[in-house]
Amino acid sequence: MSPAISWLQCIRCGARYDSHEVRYRCDCGDLLEVAHDLARLRELHPDLKRLFNDRVGTNELPYASGVWRYHEMILPELPAGEIVTKPEGNTNLYRSPKLSREFATARLILKHEGENPTLSFKDRGMTAGVSWAKHLGRKIVACASTGDTSAAMAAYAAQVEDMQGVVFLPRDKVSPEQLAQAITYGAKTLAIETDFDGCMKLVQQVCDQRPVYLLNSMNPFRIEGQKAIGLEAVQQLGWRAPDWFVIPVGNAGNISALGKGLWEARELGLIDRLPRIAGVQALAADPFYRSYQTGFREKITVTAQPTAASAIRIGAPVSHDKAAAVVQRFHGVVEAVSEEELMEAKALADRCGVAVCPNSGVALAGLRKLRARGVIADGESVVVILTAHGAKFSQVGVDYHTGRLPGLSPKQPNPPLVVSADLPAVLRALGL
Amino acid sequence: MSPAISWLQCIRCGARYDSHEVRYRCDCGDLLEVAHDLARLRELHPDLKRLFNDRVGTNELPYASGVWRYHEMILPELPAGEIVTKPEGNTNLYRSPKLSREFATARLILKHEGENPTLSFKDRGMTAGVSWAKHLGRKIVACASTGDTSAAMAAYAAQVEDMQGVVFLPRDKVSPEQLAQAITYGAKTLAIETDFDGCMKLVQQVCDQRPVYLLNSMNPFRIEGQKAIGLEAVQQLGWRAPDWFVIPVGNAGNISALGKGLWEARELGLIDRLPRIAGVQALAADPFYRSYQTGFREKITVTAQPTAASAIRIGAPVSHDKAAAVVQRFHGVVEAVSEEELMEAKALADRCGVAVCPNSGVALAGLRKLRARGVIADGESVVVILTAHGAKFSQVGVDYHTGRLPGLSPKQPNPPLVVSADLPAVLRALGL
Repeated sequence: MSPAISWLQCIRCGARYDSHEVRYRCDCGDLLEVAHDLARLRELHPDLKRLFNDRVGTNELPYASGVWRYHEMILPELPAGEIVTKPEGNTNLYRSPKLSREFATARLILKHEGENPTLSFKDRGMTAGVSWAKHLGRKIVACASTGDTSAAMAAYAAQVEDMQGVVFLPRDKVSPEQLAQAITYGAKTLAIETDFDGCMKLVQQVCDQRPVYLLNSMNPFRIEGQKAIGLEAVQQLGWRAPDWFVIPVGNAGNISALGKGLWEARELGLIDRLPRIAGVQALAADPFYRSYQTGFREKITVTAQPTAASAIRIGAPVSHDKAAAVVQRFHGVVEAVSEEELMEAKALADRCGVAVCPNSGVALAGLRKLRARGVIADGESVVVILTAHGAKFSQVGVDYHTGRLPGLSPKQPNPPLVVSADLPAVLRALGL
Repeated sequence: MSPAISWLQCIRCGARYDSHEVRYRCDCGDLLEVAHDLARLRELHPDLKRLFNDRVGTNELPYASGVWRYHEMILPELPAGEIVTKPEGNTNLYRSPKLSREFATARLILKHEGENPTLSFKDRGMTAGVSWAKHLGRKIVACASTGDTSAAMAAYAAQVEDMQGVVFLPRDKVSPEQLAQAITYGAKTLAIETDFDGCMKLVQQVCDQRPVYLLNSMNPFRIEGQKAIGLEAVQQLGWRAPDWFVIPVGNAGNISALGKGLWEARELGLIDRLPRIAGVQALAADPFYRSYQTGFREKITVTAQPTAASAIRIGAPVSHDKAAAVVQRFHGVVEAVSEEELMEAKALADRCGVAVCPNSGVALAGLRKLRARGVIADGESVVVILTAHGAKFSQVGVDYHTGRLPGLSPKQPNPPLVVSADLPAVLRALGL
């Protein structure tokens, strides 16, 4: 048998494990990543660019997917027939004079990952994670999440015959939107009398002690799917890397995946240079930003405060070390933005016709600050990764535009106008 | 100057008007449609199939759109450079053994129009309607709508420099979700002290008396965009029509568009036979179903009752006559389903990993009834049009699964399980 193309490797001590071993951490305690033998991949596939280009527009599964189009770079040893895909990806790039003006960036492109089937970028990771779970023969997959992760896991598990998704939620701290996306997709949903950290601890215990496959963010196979965001973006741009990617940072898995994918793309000759990467956090939960300010000499954790960008309210990012390596390799920067800045940036994108979530607002607000400070120069091309669809965040949108977000006075308010039911009043309201 | 390829034509008296004339009805009072000189189109484009196939997978706008890929069939005289597109369309087809089993239909395909940028099929009509408004030089576009129509209109108007969307809503009858999609996209939103019919009357008066372009469903250009749903479906199937399309019916614009597009596709040689079409209504608002039962000898209107399928709660469908003609031409049928049936069908699709809206549940429940009655035979291929994303309907999803929908006892409930925060309790809850 030929040696494996892919294996699990510790990001600190470098220890290797068979990719078919069910484990989420190294014996040393640190995170694992899926490593690939890139030299071997180059040998096996001398013209990956052509292979990937030929798959664009196909209806054939799994290659119609914006993840599995890059199968040979994602999980090359996973048989195509075992892949669980909707398909996902193939998300739009948005650019317009209006967007460029609002964000003072002439060459601005928004990649809208909220256009995935469950309306967030998490689908890309979950198609990989659930496919791998199926490949390993696991019948139960689980995660602790109140948001996009549980939606994606439940939706992919639901596609598989005889697979049960299990979602751990803190009882009474969950909105109808958050609950709906777990239960409607058929996941067994446990409302546990504890907080989020308590849920996280319990799900890990269950996965350690029973044949339940853990799909929280330390699962390294999810990163392999997520890295297709960057691959798809550069392919859409004709295999040219932009000068910058800008991406929000919470648990830091997404920026880690972006960097891993782009690095491998350059190693495999798909792009000829690396972009720079800017990670952006909300000031309410900015441990990675603070670590960056120490030159990553310190690994800082904080007690995360409430933020409209609820999905990235994380005080101790799981993928901190992977992400720090990415920022260093890509000559990156880390920025942080206030609630006012992130909500204003969201409002600006929304009114250009691109509905974004508050986390995406974090990235967009970071872009504005980096442009204002001249870190991103006039004329540089910028791709901003939008992580979820604005429609998942209706209430915060209404609260912003009607001035009901506590302590925040909106610069771009668009409240409804109450008008009596007669034509002259309506015409007056419209200035007509 | 050569004669026009497209014109406005009354669906009753056949009177013709220049397509550049701003009018929404014939002088006789009936609806207009956009008619095309199909013989001329055949002459101009002898190989439309190849033209449309060559555009699949392109990044070039507007042809990357699942509407404007068919530009020559949509609005052939609209210059490509004037088109306002996100792009939209390119929505997934879902099929799986699990779906086939749940709906007892071996050759079942779901076309998910909820995967459009504003999460409903309305984007297809609005890219056409807003593009035409821009082409006519209109700076203000308006509609009365509490739902998907206003979201789509606001989102497309927001893309155009110097265009203002105006949404008319009944004050205090609008959820945060409904309000959010109008105001966040920057539409001027009038909360009028009246009901929905009052809003409809006022928006028409404003559009009659001022240079404001009406984008409610009587606008015939929207139908041209919407008809791309059927074109895209048959192209994805290799230019083969399925035996059946199944589609929910409210205002009856969508079924009219589906029929128009498929008819023209056959006339132009893109498909070699017509499918049959099944329209499905909620029993709470079933005027079209009742008209069908008279063999369309009568045109019945009803007072629409509350239904979970709120977007099709319509007692007097605007496009009744167009839709009746489609049902007759396509040897179609019309079915109606109860609240219990539509919510159960929604739940079945959701738990296969395809999140659908209650209106889509109407179509899916109709399919089940038509299969049970043998109207749709075993072995026939069926494409069901799903109209909006389930994520827009979180509350009704939670209410269903927790048994809180009034008068409805769920057959497929999946409520959350409340569990105390200790491992043995969690393992018991999971049966592990």
